Amino acid sequence: MSNTSVQSTVDAYVAAWNHNDAAARRDAVRSAFADGGHYRDPVMAAAGHDAIAAMLGAVQEKFPGFVLRRTSPVDHHGGGLRFAWTLGPAEGPPAVEGVDFCCIAEDGRLASVVGFIDRM
Amino acid sequence: MSNTSVQSTVDAYVAAWNHNDAAARRDAVRSAFADGGHYRDPVMAAAGHDAIAAMLGAVQEKFPGFVLRRTSPVDHHGGGLRFAWTLGPAEGPPAVEGVDFCCIAEDGRLASVVGFIDRM
Repeated sequence: MSNTSVQSTVDAYVAAWNHNDAAARRDAVRSAFADGGHYRDPVMAAAGHDAIAAMLGAVQEKFPGFVLRRTSPVDHHGGGLRFAWTLGPAEGPPAVEGVDFCCIAEDGRLASVVGFIDRM
Repeated sequence: MSNTSVQSTVDAYVAAWNHNDAAARRDAVRSAFADGGHYRDPVMAAAGHDAIAAMLGAVQEKFPGFVLRRTSPVDHHGGGLRFAWTLGPAEGPPAVEGVDFCCIAEDGRLASVVGFIDRM
């Protein structure tokens, strides 16, 4: 898996969190996740494009204006990658900080994302 | 998955790194990894009990006396867990620091370990 392809997959994943438009969010989810891809963190989980897009839409509804920011390089080897992130208002300190560990599918999209919380 | 069971699985994994005796190492690998479990980090990879035990034995041969220490709590939710570790001589500063991200199999043992390096 090339650095470029891994990077663009993670960029699409971050964009999926941040789109306010449902159609754009769904497109980003499809770019980021392989068919049947799944997401899990300590508070929520979803599998498949539609469920993941709905989950992220619910986060946007509950916390309007929250922005996910990648705060580390994408560290990847083999079929795995990790990166650190913050989630919170566009201005001011983040509400949550954590790390995502992801497995990359054959097609270069995400097979799975498992999020861990470092600070909340 | 109970905390106790996750903890004992990770304890067996750490013990597998540290045994100098091949038979004890292999027993620990079997306690830690599910059948067909696999390991990958930026410099080595192995799949299955025999290959993982051989890989860890090769590390012990190359770096006699190196000790793997878990340096964070085991953070787990769903079927995933992470913990930080150091690897190095029993005394003095570690040679390597990193984080392992693991997926837990149905039987409570490790389906996969993906190691990332924070400092080398």
